[in-house]
Amino acid sequence: MFEATKVGRSVSKQDFKEQQAQLRTDLLAAQRELKAAQVPVVVLISGIEAAGKGEVVNRLNEWLDTRGVQTFAFWDESDEERERPRYWRFWRALPGRGEMAILFGGWYQTPIEHRFRDHCGDAELDAELNRIVDFERMLIQDGTLIVKFWFHMSESDQKARLKELSRDDKSRWKMLPDKSKFSEQYAAFEEVAERVIMHTDRGVSPWYLIEAGNRRYRDLTVGKTLLHAMRSRLAAAGPADEQVSGIGSPELPVGEQARITLLDQLDLSLALERDPYKAELKRLQNEINELAWRAYSQKRSTVLVFEGVDAGGKGGAIRRITNAIDARLYRAIPVAAPSDEEKAHHYLWRFWRQIPRAGHITLYDRSWYGRVLVERVEGFATDAEWRRAYSEINRFEEQLVDSGVILLKFWLHISQDEQLKRFKDRENVPYKRYKITDEDWRNREKWPQYKEAINEMVVRTSTRHAAWTLVEGNDKPYARVKVLRTICAALTEALEGEQPPPAGYLPCGERRPQPAEGATAGKKGK
Amino acid sequence: MFEATKVGRSVSKQDFKEQQAQLRTDLLAAQRELKAAQVPVVVLISGIEAAGKGEVVNRLNEWLDTRGVQTFAFWDESDEERERPRYWRFWRALPGRGEMAILFGGWYQTPIEHRFRDHCGDAELDAELNRIVDFERMLIQDGTLIVKFWFHMSESDQKARLKELSRDDKSRWKMLPDKSKFSEQYAAFEEVAERVIMHTDRGVSPWYLIEAGNRRYRDLTVGKTLLHAMRSRLAAAGPADEQVSGIGSPELPVGEQARITLLDQLDLSLALERDPYKAELKRLQNEINELAWRAYSQKRSTVLVFEGVDAGGKGGAIRRITNAIDARLYRAIPVAAPSDEEKAHHYLWRFWRQIPRAGHITLYDRSWYGRVLVERVEGFATDAEWRRAYSEINRFEEQLVDSGVILLKFWLHISQDEQLKRFKDRENVPYKRYKITDEDWRNREKWPQYKEAINEMVVRTSTRHAAWTLVEGNDKPYARVKVLRTICAALTEALEGEQPPPAGYLPCGERRPQPAEGATAGKKGK
Repeated sequence: MFEATKVGRSVSKQDFKEQQAQLRTDLLAAQRELKAAQVPVVVLISGIEAAGKGEVVNRLNEWLDTRGVQTFAFWDESDEERERPRYWRFWRALPGRGEMAILFGGWYQTPIEHRFRDHCGDAELDAELNRIVDFERMLIQDGTLIVKFWFHMSESDQKARLKELSRDDKSRWKMLPDKSKFSEQYAAFEEVAERVIMHTDRGVSPWYLIEAGNRRYRDLTVGKTLLHAMRSRLAAAGPADEQVSGIGSPELPVGEQARITLLDQLDLSLALERDPYKAELKRLQNEINELAWRAYSQKRSTVLVFEGVDAGGKGGAIRRITNAIDARLYRAIPVAAPSDEEKAHHYLWRFWRQIPRAGHITLYDRSWYGRVLVERVEGFATDAEWRRAYSEINRFEEQLVDSGVILLKFWLHISQDEQLKRFKDRENVPYKRYKITDEDWRNREKWPQYKEAINEMVVRTSTRHAAWTLVEGNDKPYARVKVLRTICAALTEALEGEQPPPAGYLPCGERRPQPAEGATAGKKGK
Repeated sequence: MFEATKVGRSVSKQDFKEQQAQLRTDLLAAQRELKAAQVPVVVLISGIEAAGKGEVVNRLNEWLDTRGVQTFAFWDESDEERERPRYWRFWRALPGRGEMAILFGGWYQTPIEHRFRDHCGDAELDAELNRIVDFERMLIQDGTLIVKFWFHMSESDQKARLKELSRDDKSRWKMLPDKSKFSEQYAAFEEVAERVIMHTDRGVSPWYLIEAGNRRYRDLTVGKTLLHAMRSRLAAAGPADEQVSGIGSPELPVGEQARITLLDQLDLSLALERDPYKAELKRLQNEINELAWRAYSQKRSTVLVFEGVDAGGKGGAIRRITNAIDARLYRAIPVAAPSDEEKAHHYLWRFWRQIPRAGHITLYDRSWYGRVLVERVEGFATDAEWRRAYSEINRFEEQLVDSGVILLKFWLHISQDEQLKRFKDRENVPYKRYKITDEDWRNREKWPQYKEAINEMVVRTSTRHAAWTLVEGNDKPYARVKVLRTICAALTEALEGEQPPPAGYLPCGERRPQPAEGATAGKKGK
């Protein structure tokens, strides 16, 4: 989930200066309009330590008309607060219609801290998060605009920032745990944060994850995102409820280093020579067949999701798997336009239908992610529909994993040039011609929109229990081997552990032993 | 919560016959229209054992056009189901657009059973219930109409019904636990059921609690309620989402014994003579003052809510309390029209403001229940707003109780005749004249609408942690003594137990020791 906050985006001084001027004007105008429209606005500022949350708050107060803005922190609890139900302090801080409140941490701070310090378990944390979801929904139904920011950075960036901070305050640096312990804590905190964000990232009150490594990028992104949220609220008729206006996604900072995405970071030059490829492919195919039988005997199901740009090589990768596995053990589901019966149901229904029995494998050639990709870009799903789909999908996948399914998701990526080469190739080779349609060419023109959708999809649905594996696809042999290797590693890890109970109904709340973290990872890089 | 399913409603054979004819015609018409509108309908049939769930399903199949209806039970799990994630079976059963599915128990059955058999705790149950809330919301957002029935009856009725059933099946009667154990089980099951219903009773998918003691009343009520839900969905533009059409509440069966309510069951002739009243009042006032100081030293807060019909005697009862308690310990909040500042916030905001500090008492003379009483009846709140208010209020009160607040809610009830007498009295006595306004007379004309609103309020918000005490108010001395006695009993019980931690922030999910069950009860009767 946090991969996208570690890509190293930055904004130059010059770019910042230029973009700031317009942004300030726009923010003030939006603030005035929201005041006139009597909309209360809550801005939540959360994130890892040393991300500069205080600096952001100061910046917002610099940019906005402070007469309508109040800032609240909740770290020094008053006795008035201590002696009342704990949400009393938040109710006190809620802005009236037309006002704005910036909350440091807000209702998220204490649950995160308590879980991080092991003062409570996952079940208690989840219960609290459900209360938060209800609370936020209630405010939104009453007309409030809630904008939630999470500031994040890589471990090394955080360390550097902490060191920098310590120059002013030696005692703080001394309090940091030693190097090895710090890594543990960083990972543990990330795990808690992911659980919190995933659980509370809803269509009506989404989280915005902001890369905080570069101050100018961070502040500009916050400003532009806030502006977008304010304008969307203004464009929506009446209280937001489940509706989201259709004015698209925030316009992010401009500048060469400000627009890098996860996909840009893939090293598409990665390749494999023919001979080592053939050997490795053979080895992996043998291994995967054995693993498939072992999974069958252990009654563990596997779900493999293949998504990717057109001509990205999904079909080829899938065939390398299905060729290797006994046909009794798998089903490959090509996902095209839905049938009449499928159209008559919820969009997840047709994927639920194909969920494998215990011990079997389903390969989805395209999947439920169509909701947030083609349906989003082509406008087949409304704004509200695709926005709430992220949390619907996360909960769907969580159910699969909780019931013992081994779930892997692959994004096969190629460059625009490589796609053009493959399209032309398809047109020229007679037996490949059926694979290329006018639609493919039309989709190609929407490359930037698809890229945006893909990035948001990866950020919002790459979770600990169901991470995306991004596959560098320009070289087909490399891509196929990476896919097979990832599957073999995940199956090996999942099948090595204790044997979980058979799939099917579980007592309420009980969870199966989770596959070890690495099992569903893979991630980018080899 | 279940009080209203034990009042002994019934419908005569003749009445049933007459009303059934029209109902069948209307149901078929509504079914046809929903088919044309392509709305999927899910009917959930749940409730205590022997309530006749199977009979109801048969009846619905008799009344509806069965070509569009499918019935599903989930008790004999197939291996196909066992080997897949547990919601797979429900997805399989979901109706397509324009179709209807009747589900026995549905997704509620197993969580209730598991909790009842202690296979899981409250935290796990709540987690599962949250998944259900999300699942239902997802279906509703997709356009589905979900109608949830819970069938209930008194313990003695259930026993009689079980005995009757056993005539056909001796083994079943033998399996029943002995009398004393049966009572325990009845109470334990009710507790689980209440938790489940309260948690999942949302504005968009409310529960309908049906008294099942009389078969004709039960079936007619189900039919009329279902008809109303279908018509409401037809009247609503597009998918239901958070919206509910404004066509009011179900038109329930007609007949003398079919329209009894909880309020009708109050014995308004209860009275106290002057002398014993004076003595008892004095004793109770001394006691409550002592208890107030004890609560102060134990840092336990108390919230007392007074609601009732106009001229029901709220003011008099409140004065008997405030006269007795040290003025430093309490605040009485008369709730009238909201101030500008209050109007600029969520409707609960002004009540949160007044929540007492640890050890103090707040008396609310009218309260947040205005949302589902006057605001509902007078149309100040939209249909969707007051419908979702029940669960908002339940969650608000749960927060109070969880943080250690002792919460008591009183409904002061008088007959229409008694109200008339008091109104006239107020007009004639000079110093009482300020208490009567034209509005009071206007409200009086809406007695039936208020009665309906009061009944629904009591049913949906009388929970184990915050039960309503219905007070027979025709005789003022009797009412005052009952109120004082209830408070003294609750305070005594709450303050006797172990001393809870000081109020204020609690680690996520952690709950304070709950006040013993009887403490917040009181209920009707003395």
